Amino acid sequence: MKVLDVVLTPVAFADPPLLNAMGVHEPFALRGVVQLICEDGVVGLGESYGDLAFLDQVRKVLPELKGHDVFDLPGLRRKVATTLGEVVFADAHGLTGGFSVSKTVASVYSLFEVAALDAQGHYLGRPVVDLLGGKARDAVDFSAYLFYKFGAHLGAEEDSWGEVTTPEALVGEARRMVEEYGFGSIKLKGGAFDPDQEMDGIRALADAFPDHPLRIDPNAAWTVETGIRVAGELDGVLEYLEDPTPGIEGMARVAEKANMPLATNMCVVRFADIEPAFRQRAVGVILSDHHYWGGLRDTQALSITAECFDVGLSMHSNSHLGISLAAMVHVAAATPHLTYACDTHWPWKTADVIAPGALEFADGAVAVPDKPGLGVELDPDALARAHEDYVRSGQTKRDDVTYMRKFVGSFEPNTARW
Amino acid sequence: MKVLDVVLTPVAFADPPLLNAMGVHEPFALRGVVQLICEDGVVGLGESYGDLAFLDQVRKVLPELKGHDVFDLPGLRRKVATTLGEVVFADAHGLTGGFSVSKTVASVYSLFEVAALDAQGHYLGRPVVDLLGGKARDAVDFSAYLFYKFGAHLGAEEDSWGEVTTPEALVGEARRMVEEYGFGSIKLKGGAFDPDQEMDGIRALADAFPDHPLRIDPNAAWTVETGIRVAGELDGVLEYLEDPTPGIEGMARVAEKANMPLATNMCVVRFADIEPAFRQRAVGVILSDHHYWGGLRDTQALSITAECFDVGLSMHSNSHLGISLAAMVHVAAATPHLTYACDTHWPWKTADVIAPGALEFADGAVAVPDKPGLGVELDPDALARAHEDYVRSGQTKRDDVTYMRKFVGSFEPNTARW
Repeated sequence: MKVLDVVLTPVAFADPPLLNAMGVHEPFALRGVVQLICEDGVVGLGESYGDLAFLDQVRKVLPELKGHDVFDLPGLRRKVATTLGEVVFADAHGLTGGFSVSKTVASVYSLFEVAALDAQGHYLGRPVVDLLGGKARDAVDFSAYLFYKFGAHLGAEEDSWGEVTTPEALVGEARRMVEEYGFGSIKLKGGAFDPDQEMDGIRALADAFPDHPLRIDPNAAWTVETGIRVAGELDGVLEYLEDPTPGIEGMARVAEKANMPLATNMCVVRFADIEPAFRQRAVGVILSDHHYWGGLRDTQALSITAECFDVGLSMHSNSHLGISLAAMVHVAAATPHLTYACDTHWPWKTADVIAPGALEFADGAVAVPDKPGLGVELDPDALARAHEDYVRSGQTKRDDVTYMRKFVGSFEPNTARW
Repeated sequence: MKVLDVVLTPVAFADPPLLNAMGVHEPFALRGVVQLICEDGVVGLGESYGDLAFLDQVRKVLPELKGHDVFDLPGLRRKVATTLGEVVFADAHGLTGGFSVSKTVASVYSLFEVAALDAQGHYLGRPVVDLLGGKARDAVDFSAYLFYKFGAHLGAEEDSWGEVTTPEALVGEARRMVEEYGFGSIKLKGGAFDPDQEMDGIRALADAFPDHPLRIDPNAAWTVETGIRVAGELDGVLEYLEDPTPGIEGMARVAEKANMPLATNMCVVRFADIEPAFRQRAVGVILSDHHYWGGLRDTQALSITAECFDVGLSMHSNSHLGISLAAMVHVAAATPHLTYACDTHWPWKTADVIAPGALEFADGAVAVPDKPGLGVELDPDALARAHEDYVRSGQTKRDDVTYMRKFVGSFEPNTARW
């Protein structure tokens, strides 16, 4: 089944002022939505980053896709690699590790792979999970994703979550999120404050939610020594410790002393990182992300590789919309070796581009859609509004650092700061 | 699409007296053919070992399959694992490494996985290669597979290949095989004679076929010291050296000194073997075999794991028929990281159970069938004849050792003999 045309639509959606090691989320999160328009009226959907630097890479590939058979995924990958050549796309936020030619190709290919799989599923009348080997589970568990946050964007009114900088406010945020979605585990985005302050937050969460596994992710804001200290102080409290410090070597030094597994979506972000990381036993959990690991099939391959080395697998999240969540749910459902509830920013968004109802949270989990393809469809009006928001946002990249400096003029990213 | 019934048919086909470290091939090779009879008139085909000990494991699972959805592969694997429990199936020939619960499950599951994928393909109207991610290549290269051999089975007339024990006869065997099939690389099954004699054979092949990459596989007939010596003497002559010596530790010791990569289908035969083998850098090429690696999808996952560690991938072969060759071709075609021509015993067989014409060799390669499923169909008469041969063969296992003792009474397997 051949591609007749491809439409790429940049969109934006309102995002709260969430804090992390790089600063604070801007008023809008950007995404790119692709529609693979195929023969027989089939349309395949994909969603990925909306940074202009990324969209520009995607746009180079679009003309090459006309006439491509959606079942020819190896050929699709070759076209992406050939078209992009030696391009290294680097996002501006710096929260997903290093950049490389292979990561650029994997990221752009992923957008189209998901859309091609969606198109295949529509053509064949089967859900994407079936094209990935079938359901290993009927629903996919997600984790509550807590953030420290400002109460309001610059010049805006306070949002419904309010300011969250204290342990008490953090517990309140968690309570609301757990009540609304039923999450059974909790992750805290750290790296915003001194680690002792963040450990107080974790301890407060442990007291309030004694049955919820807890995680903290400072995005490599700590030194090796601090990583070791926090791992010691939170021994028995955390199910895993995510990216305490930068780099495979640093992670290996923390891992040697830590009793809990170390997780990462920063030091192992492509297949070339696996050998050095595994040889050094630097990580115990990989947070996969199909958006940069090369799509859904490569995410499954990553899972098997991890399983060989007794490394766990969970899933990383950036701010995303429903097409990405559907893709995450399908691949997670088809991946037996998925050992932790996945991350999602879902509770933080207030708009989407898909028609409502396809993806619902119950007890912290999303049931795998059983309709053909990803099981979601675009809402044309919502897409138009989100595109309009993109046009009006004035944003062309995610840049938490620069936005943070509007709040705190002297701010520098917290990489290995503490 | 649900399974209505499953039929398992043991078959046998004539096999020449081929020599290896364990002895000599018996007059018949045994295989098991499964037909997954599904709704809507769809039938999925699978083929695997025909040893009674294996068939008995398969038969335990058959009753569990009625009503199973062929798209539910994770559920299929769970059913196999649950039904078989802690069974360790050990074949009698000892040429494919150790045995374990996981290898038993992977082997039995694989038979059904292939049949389920064939059924999916027929139902969806797509070739299996498309269900595995699409074609990375249009045709799959195979290697000539030379054997030393006796001229005739006990009490039988000499076969058309005659006795092959000298370098001259080996070159003649190779010439016929390369002329008939167009193979572009050559493998010699060794382990039958003293390694110096077999090295003479390799050197004769190198002289006669200077442009054909060469390999030798003594099935662990050598000590570590001999493996190192042969690797040194054949440096620049072999593209890889297969299983010179038993075990991951022994292979690692040879690998440390050898300039060519070491290949294996004996010391890395399941995912649990990967970590120790890769940590010790014991192997440079894994010879995958979907029959015991857990099917086609797991073979692809193995490929990605190997690629992460810069380990090559090729494909092992046992004596097999057309259903297995079709499965090998589909998975090989869908696996980008396949770095050498695959093994096949195809030229040695004189009968099949599939209708002719679906799989043809040209220039040593088989084009990927583009019909739905595996692209092969059973020939009912041929299946009946092959089943009749099974019934009359009197064989219930492959036992090269015992058969060899009818030629050479004092024979003992050549494991690490030299």
